[in-house]
Amino acid sequence: MANPFLKQYLMTAGPTPIPPAVSEAMAQPVLYHRAPAFIEVYARCLDRLRDVFQTGNDVLAFAASGSGAMESAVANLVRPGEPALVASCGKFGERWVELCETFGAELVHLDAGWGNRVEPADLERKLGENPGVPVVFTTLSETSTGVVNDIQALTEVAHAAGALIAVDAVSGLGAVPIPQDDWGVDVVVSGSQKALMCPPGLAFASADEAALVRAEESPGRRAYFDWGATVKGQRKDPPDSPFTPAVTLFMGLDVALGLIAEEGLEQVFERHRVLGRAARAAVKALDLEVFGPEDENANVVTAIRLPDSIDGAKVPKLMRDRFGVTIAGGQGQLKGKIARIAHCGYFGAFDIVTTFAAFEMTLRELGHEVELGAGVGAAQAVFLEAGVPAAAPA
Amino acid sequence: MANPFLKQYLMTAGPTPIPPAVSEAMAQPVLYHRAPAFIEVYARCLDRLRDVFQTGNDVLAFAASGSGAMESAVANLVRPGEPALVASCGKFGERWVELCETFGAELVHLDAGWGNRVEPADLERKLGENPGVPVVFTTLSETSTGVVNDIQALTEVAHAAGALIAVDAVSGLGAVPIPQDDWGVDVVVSGSQKALMCPPGLAFASADEAALVRAEESPGRRAYFDWGATVKGQRKDPPDSPFTPAVTLFMGLDVALGLIAEEGLEQVFERHRVLGRAARAAVKALDLEVFGPEDENANVVTAIRLPDSIDGAKVPKLMRDRFGVTIAGGQGQLKGKIARIAHCGYFGAFDIVTTFAAFEMTLRELGHEVELGAGVGAAQAVFLEAGVPAAAPA
Repeated sequence: MANPFLKQYLMTAGPTPIPPAVSEAMAQPVLYHRAPAFIEVYARCLDRLRDVFQTGNDVLAFAASGSGAMESAVANLVRPGEPALVASCGKFGERWVELCETFGAELVHLDAGWGNRVEPADLERKLGENPGVPVVFTTLSETSTGVVNDIQALTEVAHAAGALIAVDAVSGLGAVPIPQDDWGVDVVVSGSQKALMCPPGLAFASADEAALVRAEESPGRRAYFDWGATVKGQRKDPPDSPFTPAVTLFMGLDVALGLIAEEGLEQVFERHRVLGRAARAAVKALDLEVFGPEDENANVVTAIRLPDSIDGAKVPKLMRDRFGVTIAGGQGQLKGKIARIAHCGYFGAFDIVTTFAAFEMTLRELGHEVELGAGVGAAQAVFLEAGVPAAAPA
Repeated sequence: MANPFLKQYLMTAGPTPIPPAVSEAMAQPVLYHRAPAFIEVYARCLDRLRDVFQTGNDVLAFAASGSGAMESAVANLVRPGEPALVASCGKFGERWVELCETFGAELVHLDAGWGNRVEPADLERKLGENPGVPVVFTTLSETSTGVVNDIQALTEVAHAAGALIAVDAVSGLGAVPIPQDDWGVDVVVSGSQKALMCPPGLAFASADEAALVRAEESPGRRAYFDWGATVKGQRKDPPDSPFTPAVTLFMGLDVALGLIAEEGLEQVFERHRVLGRAARAAVKALDLEVFGPEDENANVVTAIRLPDSIDGAKVPKLMRDRFGVTIAGGQGQLKGKIARIAHCGYFGAFDIVTTFAAFEMTLRELGHEVELGAGVGAAQAVFLEAGVPAAAPA
């Protein structure tokens, strides 16, 4: 940190950078969780979460990673010995598989393959082959590949087959639209550390009445992540968490949700659209390929297929150690093959500029010839055309 | 906050106040959880936690409230249909009961009653009446009453009957001694927000080999709190969390554990002894009674039996609203009957002085005659005699 040439830039899809005002709020003295000053913050967060989830449901909050909210969906909806369908297209979709197996489901797996979307027609076919599946689990934004699924269409297909649908929106919520009530999505889970611009440690599950009823009909086997107990606490006046809430994270979340409200949710989505478009334009200007299908909605993470001529695993390492820019490489079967640049949450135009500048310099250092500034220039053009820099909230 | 007469003092047993240096660390920019800078912090925390738990075990860390660590013990050790014995003496002991029932145990309940200790002889009798109990769950410091149990003796009794023992040390760890390896305690669980001087949101479970083997022999039914997966991740070089860790809380924990190391664990225990002694002396000097048995080890929370002549529920409210000092009242069956003053974690002599000064003024306002300064004076005498103020680390 002593060398300003090594200023640090966090460009991963979680944890993500957080606004200074969020850090400031979390540096305030700790509050007792039953004190009026905290209850006010807690109640306001629960209200404002509804706006971001675009729902009238209670958004249930847990002190946990996003995976904890995923587990809550499985623990509350899956019954041992009954079928559950997972429609996956990458590492985080496969986490649904692990959870469903752990909780005793008869697994039906629709595996679209890493880098593909889950096609609604394929889900329809799979549900037709397996009548009586009560719940479908799938992913909004598959962080391992950058792919964003068409949740509206998948929800229609699931409902037509009489199934509920539960969606992992950990990296997607607040970056790409998933209007829960409009689309009738039964369960949306998310976490604090992505587009909600907070540190990791809070997990959320928004479950509609049908999902809550299913959970209630099959109690037991869960306590910390039990929806019924959490709903009961949060519906009290004033609302009460069944377990000690992570008070400092709520202090930060309160400020972050205020910033989202101030910017306006539609403008937040538009900003992410412009960031995604700029990132994809930069990739193309460097004569490289975006990994996954061409998709103007894939605005959470941009995955770049790396040139075969270089050692791809070196890209994130060199970007970080040499230039101070932390991005993510490929996971699992994509290790060394892709680089992933995130733009979900507190990201503005010059975050993309900085990242692609470092990326270009890194490619050059690793022996892949690129025109320095070419990717950056393409991103700049997108930003100017869109009438930005429209900076993220201060 | 505008009025310095309403400076705020947090004197509850969790969340507790945190040192400024911990707040500062958490206000630093967010780190990627796989970046070397974070892995260094994470690895150092895992090492230093061993010192506080006084164990060679891996101390397993979860992004959760302390209750999450309790659930991890039940989910990993209880098998549906098999017996489990809970030895409780208050609200948090009863949480073990709820968890064991939720996870399908045949419950054997030794209820010592709120305000009593769990007597080792009673546990011996109960285990004799119920041969073949595989696990005993109990509590180190029962936060609802201030009672501290004799875990060394209870462990001996459990082991003599062939049972493992799992101890809720959420409010006790780091305040009163529980040398896990010396006493052979199989499982100790705790949280970040008490004597570890951090905000809530991290939960810990230290399980010995016997406990880990029992967990391994009965897999499934848990994922987020699975010990096997967490051990596997933490034993990697460098250590890795199976789910995104709460990075900002670890940044704070790293500083807090450094402060504990600097003060010295034995001195930390001694400081809590002096704080507890001073609080009890203040209670007696006000002609009031400490709730629960006379116990020089009950140094986490001091519960005070309130005079029958006043409306006890008003005491915490008036202390907070009128004087800015937040303490806790009684929970459940003790509502309105006791006041609970905490001294676990970042507490020094003048925290006790301030709290008893506000308590005396509150009693007077509620119409109970006390000599102003009498409780404070008794506490001061204890501190001087003990050679303090030995302030908590800066």
